[in-house]
Amino acid sequence: MFKKILIANRGEIAVRIIRACREIGVATVAVYSEADRNSLHVDLADETVCIGPARARDSYLNTKNIISATVLTGAEAIHPGFGFLAENSKFAEMCKACHIAFIGPDPEVIEMMGNKAKARQIMGQAGVPIVPGIEGVLANFKQAEASAERIGYPIMLKASAGGGGKGIRIVWSRDELKKAYDMAKKEAQAAFDDDSMYLEKYLVEPRHIEFQILADHYGNVIHLGERDCSIQRRNQKVIEEAPSTVLSDELRWKMGDTAVRAAQAVGYKSAGTIEFLVDNNGGYYFMEMNTRIQVEHPVTELVTGIDIVKEQLKIASGEQLNIRQDDVHIQGHAIECRINAENPALGFRPSPGKVNILLWPGGNGVRLDSALYSGYDIPPTYDSMIAKLITHGQDRNEAISKMRRALDEFIIEGIDTNIEFLFQILNNPKFRCAEIDTSFIAKEFDYGA
Amino acid sequence: MFKKILIANRGEIAVRIIRACREIGVATVAVYSEADRNSLHVDLADETVCIGPARARDSYLNTKNIISATVLTGAEAIHPGFGFLAENSKFAEMCKACHIAFIGPDPEVIEMMGNKAKARQIMGQAGVPIVPGIEGVLANFKQAEASAERIGYPIMLKASAGGGGKGIRIVWSRDELKKAYDMAKKEAQAAFDDDSMYLEKYLVEPRHIEFQILADHYGNVIHLGERDCSIQRRNQKVIEEAPSTVLSDELRWKMGDTAVRAAQAVGYKSAGTIEFLVDNNGGYYFMEMNTRIQVEHPVTELVTGIDIVKEQLKIASGEQLNIRQDDVHIQGHAIECRINAENPALGFRPSPGKVNILLWPGGNGVRLDSALYSGYDIPPTYDSMIAKLITHGQDRNEAISKMRRALDEFIIEGIDTNIEFLFQILNNPKFRCAEIDTSFIAKEFDYGA
Repeated sequence: MFKKILIANRGEIAVRIIRACREIGVATVAVYSEADRNSLHVDLADETVCIGPARARDSYLNTKNIISATVLTGAEAIHPGFGFLAENSKFAEMCKACHIAFIGPDPEVIEMMGNKAKARQIMGQAGVPIVPGIEGVLANFKQAEASAERIGYPIMLKASAGGGGKGIRIVWSRDELKKAYDMAKKEAQAAFDDDSMYLEKYLVEPRHIEFQILADHYGNVIHLGERDCSIQRRNQKVIEEAPSTVLSDELRWKMGDTAVRAAQAVGYKSAGTIEFLVDNNGGYYFMEMNTRIQVEHPVTELVTGIDIVKEQLKIASGEQLNIRQDDVHIQGHAIECRINAENPALGFRPSPGKVNILLWPGGNGVRLDSALYSGYDIPPTYDSMIAKLITHGQDRNEAISKMRRALDEFIIEGIDTNIEFLFQILNNPKFRCAEIDTSFIAKEFDYGA
Repeated sequence: MFKKILIANRGEIAVRIIRACREIGVATVAVYSEADRNSLHVDLADETVCIGPARARDSYLNTKNIISATVLTGAEAIHPGFGFLAENSKFAEMCKACHIAFIGPDPEVIEMMGNKAKARQIMGQAGVPIVPGIEGVLANFKQAEASAERIGYPIMLKASAGGGGKGIRIVWSRDELKKAYDMAKKEAQAAFDDDSMYLEKYLVEPRHIEFQILADHYGNVIHLGERDCSIQRRNQKVIEEAPSTVLSDELRWKMGDTAVRAAQAVGYKSAGTIEFLVDNNGGYYFMEMNTRIQVEHPVTELVTGIDIVKEQLKIASGEQLNIRQDDVHIQGHAIECRINAENPALGFRPSPGKVNILLWPGGNGVRLDSALYSGYDIPPTYDSMIAKLITHGQDRNEAISKMRRALDEFIIEGIDTNIEFLFQILNNPKFRCAEIDTSFIAKEFDYGA
């Protein structure tokens, strides 16, 4: 196992990684921007290095400074967390060149899976079901028009370099295609500096169901069951749960096998996620692979008892996976709510600022992953997610009742949060009956669209 | 299920019970003393009633006011928590007379098990192994002398009405007997208004291992495995864990069967605990039965996934137990640390006062049961326990590493706490190897004796 690692991230996920490291005796180096001087991850780490000004591209995306900090502190590995450099294959390449272990898969795999069109192609070749769509990227608008006709509306236009819901347009008819095409390209160019687009069948009201994968350097690949992440707002997950209510045991293990095959097809090493869309008839289609730890990993940890971050560290340091597929058992039900500093009534406008009063929920079956503390001044510069509240119960109803109880106890004063919005989702009768799909929020909430 | 219950307690356990009630839709009435006006349990309950001045006997032990509050608010049942009125058979009797459900066993059972000598006698008759000792209570010093000779030193003198470590003396030789006898009697008289004593063989360096029982009104009795509570200071538990490292699977189920038989022998209904002393040879002896929820119940909840407080509520409302013995599986390992407002360096002197800064530990496998909040003024009137930190890992080592990590994150400023002392125990090589018995703290720590 590594003696010391550097965490190239901030906030909640940096704290999460530091906690795992402390529990297995790995020293930690936190990096921070000038805006994050008083952040909890800085306080909890063994060593700290300031890597630049507040703006992410000057600090958390500043690969040169991060590599320097790693070398200077003698850290053997870098954990990128999620976001920032987590799926940047060039950064993973730089680490390799500098003999620093990157806690994630090989750069080539990150690159392959980061290109949505290429990923689709590879998975199709490996026999993983994919949504009907084009091969490669669209050459021009004319091809988009012809492909849409062939596949049949509705279709989805998606930035090839995409992620985080940007550069995506759903098109319901031929009339809308031109405008959507132009706007998605523009958005993709601005967001990813790459306007190449692909096109696929748009599944109406599908579920978003993803499988957690663990793969070591010796060809051992297992899955830890699925997460249902259908509760989304503008393609951003809001509430996640495990297991999904729509998978029969048979379908669960079938999809799990597919996910394992998908990971094997690209020689995956580390923790990763295979995202599927599942339609009403139990049809499932590969959507994309995330080659990193995910925000929603705790729900899987609670139902399996397996610490995914520790497994990442073990794999990256060359240990063999000591969990077999047969050892994985799903116990009870877990739900995660993403607590954001934002105002749902004002179009979910971010609400940074000082947290004056903070009261944590606690008790049986309640997990809180957060970098918040009373008096903390949330900077306006980064993501608005400030905490993840996760509950674990014997079944879905108990997990929900624990979540409602915990949200009700949670007091954050000084900023606006989405807690009331989350509460409304949990109280929604359709949610309670698990009648959910990826359009749930858009359909059920005026301000959710 | 009840529509509304009253919680005749305060602090952490009152909050614990309120949380369970909220999760199953039961309305709660909190009672509070004048010193507890700003307590968290008052804030979280649906209704609140002030029941008197700070002094416990004027408020939390004021049975008349508590019964009145119950009647006035229309609560159908009373949960007594632990301490205060939890093992007061007269109070349970009063509840019965007023047609209020007492969330615990019948008054007769509380009385029987409350009388340590009688409990011993009943258990002996039921075939439960008991520590060699006298029948009934000591008539006089002469009998004490003769009994001690017969059984052989060391012996233990114990207040018949005892609990909480009061009125207990260990006597190693004849010379010490007279003084110990007089002092224990005096202490028992002051603490319990009853100076009757009994005498038994003192087991040297035993483990304290207790079994959690659930019993409904229809004769169904199961156990939820054991807790090892050997880490004690002056007969007060400090750290508890589940499962115990010294029980083989065979001995576990044998002792569990004995515990079930013990509960059946007294017609027990509700959650309860059978405490055993276990010697180095796997011999085990009934010590006492606690007819209430215990401080350390969370470790059992974490390893079984069963919510013991909810089970208490279900049983008291007349529901049938829907867990069979075969459904109980022990998953991983859990440890609880009792966080007290006290100063170990000053003889564990209580340290009430205002909590200025509070930082909760969190993350994977960490549970916190507490009524603390930032700015809370801990009153000097009650017990010094302010929080229970419980961790759950795949094995004992992981549970310990999580606890060390969590204790390290825990910041409470403004008062003294035993956190550093707990940390020292967790770092002790003998503790790490599970070489523990009830004299561990006295042997390993200067200030622990």
